[in-house]
Amino acid sequence: MSMRPPFPIDLVSDTATRPSPAMREVMARAEVGDEQRGEDPSVNALTEKVAAMLGQEAAIFLPSGTMCNQIALAVHCLPGDEIIAAGNSHIVSSEGAGASVFAHSVIRGIGSERGIFSTQELAAAVRSPGVKAPRSKVVCIEQTNNRGGGAVWPLETVHEIVGAARDLNLALHMDGARLMNACVATQVSAESYAKPFDSVWLDLSKGLGCPIGGVLAGSAEFIQQANRWKHRFGGAMRQAGIVAAAGLYALEHNIDRLAEDHCNARLFAEQIRELPGICLRFDRIDTNLVFFDVSDSGKTSAEIARGLAEYGVRIGVESQSLMRVVFHLDINTSMVGTAAEALKAVLVQ
Amino acid sequence: MSMRPPFPIDLVSDTATRPSPAMREVMARAEVGDEQRGEDPSVNALTEKVAAMLGQEAAIFLPSGTMCNQIALAVHCLPGDEIIAAGNSHIVSSEGAGASVFAHSVIRGIGSERGIFSTQELAAAVRSPGVKAPRSKVVCIEQTNNRGGGAVWPLETVHEIVGAARDLNLALHMDGARLMNACVATQVSAESYAKPFDSVWLDLSKGLGCPIGGVLAGSAEFIQQANRWKHRFGGAMRQAGIVAAAGLYALEHNIDRLAEDHCNARLFAEQIRELPGICLRFDRIDTNLVFFDVSDSGKTSAEIARGLAEYGVRIGVESQSLMRVVFHLDINTSMVGTAAEALKAVLVQ
Amino acid sequence: MSMRPPFPIDLVSDTATRPSPAMREVMARAEVGDEQRGEDPSVNALTEKVAAMLGQEAAIFLPSGTMCNQIALAVHCLPGDEIIAAGNSHIVSSEGAGASVFAHSVIRGIGSERGIFSTQELAAAVRSPGVKAPRSKVVCIEQTNNRGGGAVWPLETVHEIVGAARDLNLALHMDGARLMNACVATQVSAESYAKPFDSVWLDLSKGLGCPIGGVLAGSAEFIQQANRWKHRFGGAMRQAGIVAAAGLYALEHNIDRLAEDHCNARLFAEQIRELPGICLRFDRIDTNLVFFDVSDSGKTSAEIARGLAEYGVRIGVESQSLMRVVFHLDINTSMVGTAAEALKAVLVQ
Amino acid sequence: MSMRPPFPIDLVSDTATRPSPAMREVMARAEVGDEQRGEDPSVNALTEKVAAMLGQEAAIFLPSGTMCNQIALAVHCLPGDEIIAAGNSHIVSSEGAGASVFAHSVIRGIGSERGIFSTQELAAAVRSPGVKAPRSKVVCIEQTNNRGGGAVWPLETVHEIVGAARDLNLALHMDGARLMNACVATQVSAESYAKPFDSVWLDLSKGLGCPIGGVLAGSAEFIQQANRWKHRFGGAMRQAGIVAAAGLYALEHNIDRLAEDHCNARLFAEQIRELPGICLRFDRIDTNLVFFDVSDSGKTSAEIARGLAEYGVRIGVESQSLMRVVFHLDINTSMVGTAAEALKAVLVQ
Repeated sequence: MSMRPPFPIDLVSDTATRPSPAMREVMARAEVGDEQRGEDPSVNALTEKVAAMLGQEAAIFLPSGTMCNQIALAVHCLPGDEIIAAGNSHIVSSEGAGASVFAHSVIRGIGSERGIFSTQELAAAVRSPGVKAPRSKVVCIEQTNNRGGGAVWPLETVHEIVGAARDLNLALHMDGARLMNACVATQVSAESYAKPFDSVWLDLSKGLGCPIGGVLAGSAEFIQQANRWKHRFGGAMRQAGIVAAAGLYALEHNIDRLAEDHCNARLFAEQIRELPGICLRFDRIDTNLVFFDVSDSGKTSAEIARGLAEYGVRIGVESQSLMRVVFHLDINTSMVGTAAEALKAVLVQ
Repeated sequence: MSMRPPFPIDLVSDTATRPSPAMREVMARAEVGDEQRGEDPSVNALTEKVAAMLGQEAAIFLPSGTMCNQIALAVHCLPGDEIIAAGNSHIVSSEGAGASVFAHSVIRGIGSERGIFSTQELAAAVRSPGVKAPRSKVVCIEQTNNRGGGAVWPLETVHEIVGAARDLNLALHMDGARLMNACVATQVSAESYAKPFDSVWLDLSKGLGCPIGGVLAGSAEFIQQANRWKHRFGGAMRQAGIVAAAGLYALEHNIDRLAEDHCNARLFAEQIRELPGICLRFDRIDTNLVFFDVSDSGKTSAEIARGLAEYGVRIGVESQSLMRVVFHLDINTSMVGTAAEALKAVLVQ
Repeated sequence: MSMRPPFPIDLVSDTATRPSPAMREVMARAEVGDEQRGEDPSVNALTEKVAAMLGQEAAIFLPSGTMCNQIALAVHCLPGDEIIAAGNSHIVSSEGAGASVFAHSVIRGIGSERGIFSTQELAAAVRSPGVKAPRSKVVCIEQTNNRGGGAVWPLETVHEIVGAARDLNLALHMDGARLMNACVATQVSAESYAKPFDSVWLDLSKGLGCPIGGVLAGSAEFIQQANRWKHRFGGAMRQAGIVAAAGLYALEHNIDRLAEDHCNARLFAEQIRELPGICLRFDRIDTNLVFFDVSDSGKTSAEIARGLAEYGVRIGVESQSLMRVVFHLDINTSMVGTAAEALKAVLVQ
Repeated sequence: MSMRPPFPIDLVSDTATRPSPAMREVMARAEVGDEQRGEDPSVNALTEKVAAMLGQEAAIFLPSGTMCNQIALAVHCLPGDEIIAAGNSHIVSSEGAGASVFAHSVIRGIGSERGIFSTQELAAAVRSPGVKAPRSKVVCIEQTNNRGGGAVWPLETVHEIVGAARDLNLALHMDGARLMNACVATQVSAESYAKPFDSVWLDLSKGLGCPIGGVLAGSAEFIQQANRWKHRFGGAMRQAGIVAAAGLYALEHNIDRLAEDHCNARLFAEQIRELPGICLRFDRIDTNLVFFDVSDSGKTSAEIARGLAEYGVRIGVESQSLMRVVFHLDINTSMVGTAAEALKAVLVQ
């Protein structure tokens, strides 16, 4: 058995994390049952734990974060509703227009500062009532905001949006793919961020290092409806405790250490900030993501990616001139230096 | 029988036009058959005439322009596709998120200058290929652009967009609700504007003065598929020749006279341009629409509308501070002056 | 102007009726307004009248009966629901699987006797609760049942189904395309049949002789939601009073005379009952439809239809061996004899 | 860690199988990568193996069999299409009307003998062409047919259906949840059954004993489209090799042994056949499922299930009088006798 990944230093995403030996051991010994019948003890333990963490009544285990988003929107919306989210959100760009297929609703992508919008911007996006306009129904927050450079929604702003949404009669959904990064970065509890939302989910397969899964939380009534959608989607698995056990392990062992990823991100940003041809896209590094522009380097993103590959380093190509680097538990501080050096070398080739 | 409308001077929309005695006479004598079986001679004559006008192979009669848009998108798209249109388009704001319900696709509303966007803006809105992003599939043009103040897409810009769309592998759809206004304003033929499009429609119930209907045109293959959707929607009627006959009449008698509406719009704009508290939203009046802002009047749009009602004048409330005035065949030049005087009086009340 | 229809004796459907001179006169003089704004007096008068007739709170004018069915189901259902109807229903076979497209729900077509099923058959079709099965949500009755030979649901059976549906927590929908035929045939009021239903509609363009339209009725809340769907579908028209006026005329003049159509249907059935090679599909002729089988004639339905065409007679081809004849206000008793004679002649050719 | 299941003898479904120590060991050591990027070697090995087994060009790993069915139908259909399947199929009764939600198409459930229908029955279910009827698009076979008592579609019948479907221009889909049971029972290869189908899938989490997953196979073009739907559904996981490795293990070790399950099913059927109050629903036991009716026992299914629970035995309640027993790799021959004895005891209580 070889565990060698295709790239020794894989910075393309925090989804690249592979389960550690300890996590594998936990999975191998997991107690399991048929989760479709509610009889998988590891799944049940995980969903109870996440519901409590997020200040919600109940939770449900799903194969991915995308399914968490899609099912939440399908439960909240009637056909023809409108969902308001930052235009740079994952649900807008990276889920195959799922909201139009499953919730039969449209996402109105609005302007934002690194994915964070104000109550004024929210209110302006709400449609006037009437029989012709889509009905504004849900507002979504992505915490942290990926394409905004891992920007953290400040707790105060979150609470302002919550208040405005209540006034505007909108349901509240949080895409918490990297919520734990926000919590670690700000030392604010997940419950503080998540409790007022009607639906919120955690991704287990990003920075937390699990192979599979997301956990969607909400009221008991919401979760009951989400469970019907889970079965319809084919997201109901069987002895899912095998992978849910990894989630339990991760919640215990892999949260606090996200601080190291944030540290590494800042370290990397400092090391490349002055490189000729490189321009950091966001000056402030809130969490584990670093975006930079290579327009002035004389090379395209794809060329740089190819150059780095020869050094065993992989980073993300966002566009012809924009690149993304993501830090996670398979990346240690020495790799940060290696990656920065490799980038420097590629730029002068 | 009383033909008195609720407002003697109804400027709220060109959909307010009521059939003239001559048009009523034509309807009363119309030859009819069962249009579901393709046997209504008036419907057949109308669809053939419109197809020819628009340089298309075939056409289909539908109860409204909204259904023309929705069926065209449903034919062009597979579930999960993305449609690119100016963010201010009718299909974005005023069709109940229909594209998400019927085409199961999402409309990406992009920035524009009065609803007119460039090939660069179009290209920037196309998603990169890949398994996660929605698939960019259609580009829509609204000719004239309503919320852009009845702005006319210049023929050259239309042709540039057509060329770009071909390069980008996008289908082309034209919402031609007020295409004939554009033709009359620019002296460009409908065929010149419409022929390169994969689908395009005319509204009969706006400036053309008919009570009911739109005509959607495209290739024979497109219309065959549209016909299946027409039946599914319940847009297939029976002796529709009764109303199609009005369309035939309108195409003969009510196109050239749109110039009067444009004249009246410009006349009205001049008469209110200097009124205190009034600010024309668009300096240039391309066709039959005039938008103005009342922020500085000390009154809201709703207050002004209520004031005008006492003078028998109705205009449109677009938002708290934006109002719309539309000129059409039930409005003559003397009414223009009356309406402007009424507005002046209301402002100083 | 020639009013000559393609077939002097067109028995293919009661949708073939063409507006009479008196009805045309009423349309020509109709008071109209913009029905999208609720300002068309003729539309308003029609919907109020139909709501009252059907014992419902409110009603809405739509371009066709298919749209009445599709909008009603879309309002009643959430995605993933199941609708129970006789397997021979129009919504099952003739609306382009619309319930799966618009209501995102499935129709479970069940066995029936001429489209009429029992409370036992209804109860057996209801799914057990649970997260996997579709949720049984609506039961539909088609009154009269077309493919069941225009069979009338007896009032007692209707009331039994209503009671069972309440017990089973199902919404009740009536496809009343030919409800007035049932009323005339049984001397039971439309209100008696329709009042307990959550939604019910009348078709104006079948036996009632109008060119366009159906009227869907229900509670005020139901109609409000239906109105949103109407706009989304593009079923909202403008000066629809032109055709609604025909509906008002028809309700006054064309209901009682349906008895003649029923008489003619029975007369025709008697005249062809003994013809060699002809077998009446349903022995009892409840209303205006006659189905017969031609298996033993040595000819296919299509061959017989072609033969009849030479006599100026058109009847319906349902399958290779099944034919349908429909009586309506453009058919008088002398035509019945002509048609029967023509059939006799064709059979022996 | 306790591995004790809730019922020592769980015959409720073959989905109840829990991974064996050897399978757990394989999972713990699995080579993994990011399957969304096509980089998980275990997933790739599994999909290649299954594609080859089924005589198909390519395959895709999904979290469940339900998602395999739903994605296959979504790829094959356009909105408004009709799918023909036995009325007792899993896709009809147990997938939340998913085909109406995702494929926007309707399933026409037809009569069958234990889930097996003839080419005549298939042809009769195909709609005539025309603009009103749903378009018949796909025929589905469930091999083995669950509610038909695990009945095996004979190879000859499969080939007849394949031929008819080609003539009728229908796509062919096989729900192969228990295809390997059919193969083992008939000694016919999976390829022989599956190769002519346009899509076909295997369930890993039933008799094969894996915790999670199904594998959907088809042409390279079909799988490419399925992959887009997989991402949209959120069925794309990350280091899915953890569970795919169990699939590889199962294909090697757990196929031939299905014969034991079939043996146990027949043994159980013999042991209960003569019990008073018990009537086998299907006389012939093709594979691992036994259905029996308890109408004459004086007890309901639920009462019997409660009685058996006290003996540590769980069986399935299908309806008030129908019960299902399923044999699988966690059930050995001695448990068969125990279960039959328990049933005998419960019946006389």
